[in-house]
Amino acid sequence: MVVSYILRILLTISLFSAADAPAQTLAERLGYPPGSKLIIVHADDLGQTHAVNAAAIKALESGSVNSASLMVPCPWFPEMADYANSHADRDLGLHLTLTSERVYYRWPPVASTDKVASLVDANGYFHHDWQPHQQIDAEQVETELRAQVERALRMGVHPTHLDSHQYRLIMNGKDLFDALLRVAHDYQLPVFVTTDWFADHPYLQSSLGSGDIVLDHTVTIGPEVPAEKWADFYRQALINLKPGVTEFVIHPGYDDEEERAATRERATWGAAWRQRDYDFFMSRQFRDLLVQENIKLITWRELTELWKAHSPGAAPK
Amino acid sequence: MVVSYILRILLTISLFSAADAPAQTLAERLGYPPGSKLIIVHADDLGQTHAVNAAAIKALESGSVNSASLMVPCPWFPEMADYANSHADRDLGLHLTLTSERVYYRWPPVASTDKVASLVDANGYFHHDWQPHQQIDAEQVETELRAQVERALRMGVHPTHLDSHQYRLIMNGKDLFDALLRVAHDYQLPVFVTTDWFADHPYLQSSLGSGDIVLDHTVTIGPEVPAEKWADFYRQALINLKPGVTEFVIHPGYDDEEERAATRERATWGAAWRQRDYDFFMSRQFRDLLVQENIKLITWRELTELWKAHSPGAAPK
Repeated sequence: MVVSYILRILLTISLFSAADAPAQTLAERLGYPPGSKLIIVHADDLGQTHAVNAAAIKALESGSVNSASLMVPCPWFPEMADYANSHADRDLGLHLTLTSERVYYRWPPVASTDKVASLVDANGYFHHDWQPHQQIDAEQVETELRAQVERALRMGVHPTHLDSHQYRLIMNGKDLFDALLRVAHDYQLPVFVTTDWFADHPYLQSSLGSGDIVLDHTVTIGPEVPAEKWADFYRQALINLKPGVTEFVIHPGYDDEEERAATRERATWGAAWRQRDYDFFMSRQFRDLLVQENIKLITWRELTELWKAHSPGAAPK
Repeated sequence: MVVSYILRILLTISLFSAADAPAQTLAERLGYPPGSKLIIVHADDLGQTHAVNAAAIKALESGSVNSASLMVPCPWFPEMADYANSHADRDLGLHLTLTSERVYYRWPPVASTDKVASLVDANGYFHHDWQPHQQIDAEQVETELRAQVERALRMGVHPTHLDSHQYRLIMNGKDLFDALLRVAHDYQLPVFVTTDWFADHPYLQSSLGSGDIVLDHTVTIGPEVPAEKWADFYRQALINLKPGVTEFVIHPGYDDEEERAATRERATWGAAWRQRDYDFFMSRQFRDLLVQENIKLITWRELTELWKAHSPGAAPK
């Protein structure tokens, strides 16, 4: 009993120590002084609707959003590809998509549907959701991911990073995450992963290699936050921001006819939600908080350049 | 010379006689008195955008449009399928689609793209347009048409008729038209064809059988009509309407952010065009002209029922 008690105390101390004195943050590894706080303000879901595209473009142009990712299978992807073609300096990644989660507005895969049969429903759309019994074939996933990257490249989009719509490729086991990593490595693109997720999904850490960029943290708002607390949530997140590089995953969009119709079956990530995100990140309050809390912005493109310069095998500058 | 002159006069008389005393109109064959004028007010392109769906639903609900057809491959088709499910009495057909003619907003086929390779571009979308050198494979067309009908049926849409987006299946030779006819006959659905088109496309008449419904005329507005003459065009068309069954092919839609963005590369069938169509057919002027000119409305469903009752093999009622 006493030994067990002592062991528990030691374990607690060890966990506390790890929390108090964590390994170097990504920011420190990239040459920032200890304690530095950097954020990527990242708009998700571009290409899904025109209302999302128009809001995201406005936010990118204003500088309040400095990074975003595009859903290649979605109907409005060509509008974003056109934007990417004429704005080659923007930090645009691919929001790799394997679901078509709405009800009245849907999209199919990029790959030929008979090559990705486990990913589509009887009507040829991506599944609305993945049920526990559903067998999602990792090889088919990889086929579809490559088809998305190839369509983007053909249409003139040169992505700076990859991430996963609804975290499907992150939260659904080692096989899907490894498929994502293989594609990312082949195209030499960083993947949005954060150490925040390692505890719940240990395969992430074991699959990642020393050459992979891993962000320190992520912040995203959830359906538990009432509409009137939206700005409070983000203000608190910025005031309590931890040192390191944090990606704010946000969903700006306009609360207009199209977006209301496209999302009308549920309020989560709906039109009003997206308008609230747009409004907060376009606000003076957000810009003031960045100055007040000494938070710097960083893009995936900048991260990758710094990473190359600071990685063990990098040539001296 | 004299013989030739007489022959020309005889030919002219014969043509005049044909024009003065044409074969029975479809309306007469269906039991309407000679001289009867009936129109189908048909909204095209449903499913293409929410702006088109919302306007068309409003027009269908008001009764100013009495028939419409749905583009199954388009992203907003599920919204129309949902409407069709809850409005089983509406006269909704399928607007069979083989092109994705816009630039910033696009859709792929319903069939697996590797089965319909001649119909898609390098990115897997339907071609933007068909070039003269392009080989469109009629077997692949049939595969795609069947995939569209099957998706519609699976999603609860029971079409009353078939027609062809951009008349691709009408104006591009016997092979494509015959593919359309085979599908129509297999599903026992009438196809929108009119005798107006026979002179330019003789294969239409030779492929059609005595069991096929053929409309007498069609009216559709073209890009040569300036915006301020829109109502004039339709007013003249109604005043000068010929006896028989005429389909007015119209394109109602709302001139809103989504529609303007989706159609912004050219004005033809663009957002303002669709708003003008919506405005005219929702107007009091249109309803008054129907009364004034003694024009009756008829749907494809009603046409088919009358056709069955009046066709040579029909059982006596």
